[in-house]
Amino acid sequence: MNNDTICALATPTGGAIAVIRLSGPETYSIIPAICRRPGKSSTHLHHDEIAGNSRLFVHIIDEKDELIDEVLVSLFHAPHSYTGEDAAEISCHGSTYIARRIIELLVKNGCRMAQPGEFTQRAFLNGKMDLSQAEAVADLINSQNRATHHIAMSQLRGHFSSELSRLRERLLHLTTLLELELDFSDHEDLEFADRTELQQLAHTIEERINYLARSFETGQALKQGFPVAIIGKTNVGKSTLLNRLLRDERAIVSDLHGTTRDTIEDIIDINGIQFRFIDTAGIRQTSDVVEQIGIQRTYEAISKARIVLWVLDSLPDNAEIDNITSRIEKRVLIPIWNKIDQTSVGTQINSSILNLTPIRISAKNGQGINELEQAIYQAANIPEFQESDIIVTNARHYEALTQASVNLKRVITGLEANLSDDLIAEDLRLVLSDLGEITGGTITSQETLSNVFSHFCIGK
Amino acid sequence: MNNDTICALATPTGGAIAVIRLSGPETYSIIPAICRRPGKSSTHLHHDEIAGNSRLFVHIIDEKDELIDEVLVSLFHAPHSYTGEDAAEISCHGSTYIARRIIELLVKNGCRMAQPGEFTQRAFLNGKMDLSQAEAVADLINSQNRATHHIAMSQLRGHFSSELSRLRERLLHLTTLLELELDFSDHEDLEFADRTELQQLAHTIEERINYLARSFETGQALKQGFPVAIIGKTNVGKSTLLNRLLRDERAIVSDLHGTTRDTIEDIIDINGIQFRFIDTAGIRQTSDVVEQIGIQRTYEAISKARIVLWVLDSLPDNAEIDNITSRIEKRVLIPIWNKIDQTSVGTQINSSILNLTPIRISAKNGQGINELEQAIYQAANIPEFQESDIIVTNARHYEALTQASVNLKRVITGLEANLSDDLIAEDLRLVLSDLGEITGGTITSQETLSNVFSHFCIGK
Repeated sequence: MNNDTICALATPTGGAIAVIRLSGPETYSIIPAICRRPGKSSTHLHHDEIAGNSRLFVHIIDEKDELIDEVLVSLFHAPHSYTGEDAAEISCHGSTYIARRIIELLVKNGCRMAQPGEFTQRAFLNGKMDLSQAEAVADLINSQNRATHHIAMSQLRGHFSSELSRLRERLLHLTTLLELELDFSDHEDLEFADRTELQQLAHTIEERINYLARSFETGQALKQGFPVAIIGKTNVGKSTLLNRLLRDERAIVSDLHGTTRDTIEDIIDINGIQFRFIDTAGIRQTSDVVEQIGIQRTYEAISKARIVLWVLDSLPDNAEIDNITSRIEKRVLIPIWNKIDQTSVGTQINSSILNLTPIRISAKNGQGINELEQAIYQAANIPEFQESDIIVTNARHYEALTQASVNLKRVITGLEANLSDDLIAEDLRLVLSDLGEITGGTITSQETLSNVFSHFCIGK
Repeated sequence: MNNDTICALATPTGGAIAVIRLSGPETYSIIPAICRRPGKSSTHLHHDEIAGNSRLFVHIIDEKDELIDEVLVSLFHAPHSYTGEDAAEISCHGSTYIARRIIELLVKNGCRMAQPGEFTQRAFLNGKMDLSQAEAVADLINSQNRATHHIAMSQLRGHFSSELSRLRERLLHLTTLLELELDFSDHEDLEFADRTELQQLAHTIEERINYLARSFETGQALKQGFPVAIIGKTNVGKSTLLNRLLRDERAIVSDLHGTTRDTIEDIIDINGIQFRFIDTAGIRQTSDVVEQIGIQRTYEAISKARIVLWVLDSLPDNAEIDNITSRIEKRVLIPIWNKIDQTSVGTQINSSILNLTPIRISAKNGQGINELEQAIYQAANIPEFQESDIIVTNARHYEALTQASVNLKRVITGLEANLSDDLIAEDLRLVLSDLGEITGGTITSQETLSNVFSHFCIGK
């Protein structure tokens, strides 16, 4: 299907080594064109040395016979490769200059620079994985914690695909029953499908599809971090609390993977789940602005949050309580007594707020922060992940599920209204097609493919 | 020698894949402890599957049986590995989270996190390369252009080591002759070594050592960029010229390797050689400060430069000419007529300056910039690199060569003064030891090793 051979850097440079990937029919002729066996005078590779799934320590030589690098080349014979095509991986020294020279040399010898996600796209086109699994590869690479890693891995292993396949089987059965009835519709006394049973089956499938679609909200929160707002009057210690939560997190992660987290300013990881503190820049400025703007900011923060931390250092008055309760709606409110290290706070810290027992902390010295973190984690109400748990995280999947749900609703209405079998069967075909879009099993448009793979990094 | 097994990330994360390295005697027991064969229920690896230099597609499973990633493991049996020990490379998905989990798992199963350069240090200790070759590995990874790549590669391939080995052989021959004489010193009528010949040999060796030591200046310039100063009166277009040179460079490199150069603000690459514009921040401010400070800054810039670009838009007066000529010394001066796009510049642009023909440019529209770049390249007077050219770039090598030169000078003075053979032989031993320090062939102190390898990145 693909007649060209693509290449790309598969790792960033700057480490000890860098890896360059090749895939396509010319792999086994391009590699010997640029590689020589090490030795006093480098010699060409024997044909049988690169015949199979071999691993070679070779020199890469440019057209002027200059040595570019000593590298390790791994060859993969089709279909036993990631893409399903002939493929190779070149491990060179991790210099940008060297990687660039090797890629230039590959291009001179007939390779084309790969598009983002093109290796995975080829794996999909060659039947190595379905479309939702291909998307899981990108999610897996971007996974930053236990939750997103788990969901991506489950999807890559095909659990979502299997679930969809089961749903489609049941829908196909439903369609077959209806079409069978249709074929024999002139036999008036025959009724193949019990309409009530059909309705029940459709309802069961609808429920499952809606369940999957609903999981998208959790999926999004897990992917982007559960939104948490820190609210409260000025000078109650909101910034100190945020810095404390972030600092503790920094201390935990810094020895493990250094720089990565430095750019994620306001995200903390509790038990493998990400929490994102929203609109905190605004909150940080509340002490500089007039009261009215402060209240407005608080409302905005609450509206974007799923969890609200309400920081107190004294009993709130009725106006404050009313303001907040009117906005909280379905969000989880966690009242917090801060400054328990100060005797001035007195006995009021024993009071409950809105029938909730506040968590007692000192943002300043760190007392109670562990308890608070666990309360935040509980508030997110995350299911304990099982290997086969399915949580939809992909907007494309969510749209397809939503569309399937709409069309299935039409099927159910049609069954209830005793519409003719052919009309219902037509809607059922639409539902099947909607679900098929997710795995790419039915004919997938080039536009869909381009959308999916353009979000990948180059080299994958 | 090393009883522990080390591990480290060998590539940055954030790409399609990441590579984790292991080396040490436990490699072949740690890999099967964390890897399973893919399948419905993952099964343990057979002993014979991991017996040799194999490549395995496996699942990495944590202690709770959770799947961390689907990876490719390459096994290398001692001594056929980079370190000379049993070793492995794990290619996982390029997620920081996954890489961290795998490293944590390796550590739980008996690996130790590697120190910077520890893999290469083991390669040195196991005789896979000498010390100067090990240092070349770090230089190769850091190489950013044709020149530094060429020098590092030449050193890695052992050309410097061979040269040192040849010098040491000749010195050993000299020592042997002297010691032979010493052993038979009671035979008064015997003279084994012709003192004049010995002196000539010592001189030849000294010359070669001094040549190598002198190459360090060029080596440093190639490594850090040849220092170039842009000087001239205010408003002659110095900043515009610098921006033009940098912008042209940006345009050339941006499509090739994107972000890397963005941080190297004032370096341009001409024909594969780096040029570094020094103290330009100061020069940029000259229009804001009083004339006297401006002149002082110009002097400082000249003193740090090897090449001086003197930008003019009118004929300089005698004071300016005298000021600059008194400071230029051995540096290469390139006078530049800027603003040739403006008619106001008139015919004076045909004048030569200090008997040099100025290069005519318009920093504003780019005219003449190519010619200027080639003039800068010519001024650097870089030798055309041959495969076996040796240029010393390492300060440790330079110090050893300088020390060897000092000790060899004592040998020569001793021979001239007809000192006794044993004293001269003692100095010769010192020279041998100095040169031996470079390759690490003689006993190398732990301090030297620590110094050498602490400059490496982790994972190499």
